[in-house]
Order: sequence, then structure tokens, then C-alpha cells
Amino acid sequence: MVRSAAQLIRRQGVSGTGMREIVADAGAPRGSLRHYFPDGKVQLVSEALVMMGGVASRRVARALARPEVRSPGALLDAVAEDWRRDLTTEDFVAGCPLVAAAVDAASTSEPLRQVVGQAFDDWQAPLSAGLAALGVPAARAPRLALLVLSALEGAIILSRIRRDLVPLDTLVTELGPMLDAAATEGADE
Amino acid sequence: MVRSAAQLIRRQGVSGTGMREIVADAGAPRGSLRHYFPDGKVQLVSEALVMMGGVASRRVARALARPEVRSPGALLDAVAEDWRRDLTTEDFVAGCPLVAAAVDAASTSEPLRQVVGQAFDDWQAPLSAGLAALGVPAARAPRLALLVLSALEGAIILSRIRRDLVPLDTLVTELGPMLDAAATEGADE
Repeated sequence: MVRSAAQLIRRQGVSGTGMREIVADAGAPRGSLRHYFPDGKVQLVSEALVMMGGVASRRVARALARPEVRSPGALLDAVAEDWRRDLTTEDFVAGCPLVAAAVDAASTSEPLRQVVGQAFDDWQAPLSAGLAALGVPAARAPRLALLVLSALEGAIILSRIRRDLVPLDTLVTELGPMLDAAATEGADE
Repeated sequence: MVRSAAQLIRRQGVSGTGMREIVADAGAPRGSLRHYFPDGKVQLVSEALVMMGGVASRRVARALARPEVRSPGALLDAVAEDWRRDLTTEDFVAGCPLVAAAVDAASTSEPLRQVVGQAFDDWQAPLSAGLAALGVPAARAPRLALLVLSALEGAIILSRIRRDLVPLDTLVTELGPMLDAAATEGADE
């Protein structure tokens, strides 16, 4: 049910996803929802967001482990590649569940806002550490990681709307060299 | 009613905003909805998104007209300033209506997807022209305008979630110099 919730939220947001729809999508018996999630929708959605936040940060770790990722720009390309694949295999109908929850639930549910905030922090941390490991000065790495997250989230949204990968590709070609330059400046210091 | 719809969508998304709530927020008589918007929610939401897309592109024009905006980085700062003001005066509860619609309605309504796509195109065009007017090579200006839109949308989302302006400020301090460098390279050609 947590997985079904995450996938439905990626397509139609939190408000647009009903509890009955989640149960039906998961093929679960009707009574199981109250059994496993006594606190209702916020609890189920929270667990889905924590799970998907974990997926996002593990993607950074996997990207860092690839042998071709030897520069910050290559790391950005590898991270973007996961999203390119998601968007094309799913025909541009699904985006990032954290953004979906941020947009339609964060102002109405303080618990969900905190879950999404924590998930973004947990995603920024390995990205920042990865940029630093690839030569970006330690003081600047958290700022560039935050910029990358912002730009990546925006590019996913714009790619969905356009139904093409131009925003994601532009992110890689324009922001990648800037990250590499930051690493070069770090090496000069 | 169009204005009420736009403001409610900025806070809670399209799916989370009911027609009755819009009518109540606007203080309009109940029958007026069917009179003015015979095609229902998609029609009303479309008009709200077109209106707000116009606001976004006019903000770029106003930023360009400011005497202190003499570089691409200063243009970015001026555009971000409008969003900083929105976020702080509204206590971080409302974001960009185009993103809200992109996230929770674009996959379920093809007419809304097209409206949002057009609004983003209409926003990118003056931004691209402004960057070119401030020295960015004409071939690169549309790409950098798209990157700025992506990063701006993502930073608004992250600022809402964190309830602070760090993502927007980081966008300006990190991306601004990169835009200025693109203009300098253009001048060297």
C-alpha cells in the first residue's frame, strides 16, 4: 500500500489520491488500511514519502559509485539520468512525490511538511558530500547541492509539462560545467 | 472567482481546491459559477492559470525596467525578489500556481497540461529576451532562461517546505555569477 500510495502521488498529488484508490491499486483487502495505518492518510502518505526520499538519496550514492563519475558535472548527469529514464518509461505522467506533497499538502498538514523537509535534507546531504568528494570546496558544496536539487525538481516539472527531456538536458549541459568550474577553483586554492 | 481560484490553487493545488470553496472564497452567488464557467472546473482553473502566467511574465518585464538591473545576475535577483516577497508576506503557505497545476493535474487533464505548458513558454520568452538584452549570446539565452525557470520553481518549492529563503537566496548567489559569466563570454566573441 505504501508503494501504491507513492506511485499514485507521483501522478496526481496527495489531494488527488484517495485512500480507497490506494487500497484498490495495492489489491489489498479493505479492512487492512485501518489495521496498518490507524492514523489514516497522513500516516500512509508520510511512510510513502519517507520511502521515496530514501530512494532519491540512494540514487545519489549509486551515481557516485559509477566509475565514469569523476567530476561534479558527471555526477549531475548520472543523477539526472535516473529521472530521464523514469520520465520516458512512464510517458511523462509521473514526477517527484516529494514535490507533489510539497505543493498540495505542505500548507495544510504540518506533519507532512516536516516529513518532506526531512526527506529533502536527507537527499541534499549525500549530494553535498559527493560534490565535495569530487573537488567542490567544502564550504560551497552544500549551497551547490541545494541549487542542484532546486534545478532538478524544477526541470522534472517542466519536462513533465512539455513531455520532452529538454529541461533536464539543459540542466545537465548548463549547470554541469559550472559545477566542474567550482571544483577547479577549489583545486586552485 | 478566477482570482480566488488562483490563490487557493497556490496553497493547496488543483485537486485540493473544490469549486464550492472557490465560490465561497470569492463571495460570489452560487449560481454564478455555472453562468460564467459553463465548462466547469477545467475552464475556471485554465483562466486562473492563464492570468497567473501573465503575472509571471509581466514580473520579468518590470524587473528589466528597473534601473539597477544592468546584468543577467541583477535580473535574476530582481525576479527572485518578487517571490521572496510573496513567500514572506504569505508566511510560506503559497507557491506558484503553474507548478501546482503541473504536479497534480497535468497527468489527468490534457487541456490543463497545455495551458500550463503555454504559460511556461510565455514566461520563458521575456526572460530569454532579457538575458540576451543584457549580453548573453542569443543562442544560449533560451537555454539559460529555461535553467533559471527550473531552478526558480524548485527553489520556491524548497523555500516553502523549509519555511526560509535559503533556497531562493542560494539560487541568486550561485546562479547569478554564472549568468554574468555567460554575458562576459558573449562580449568576448
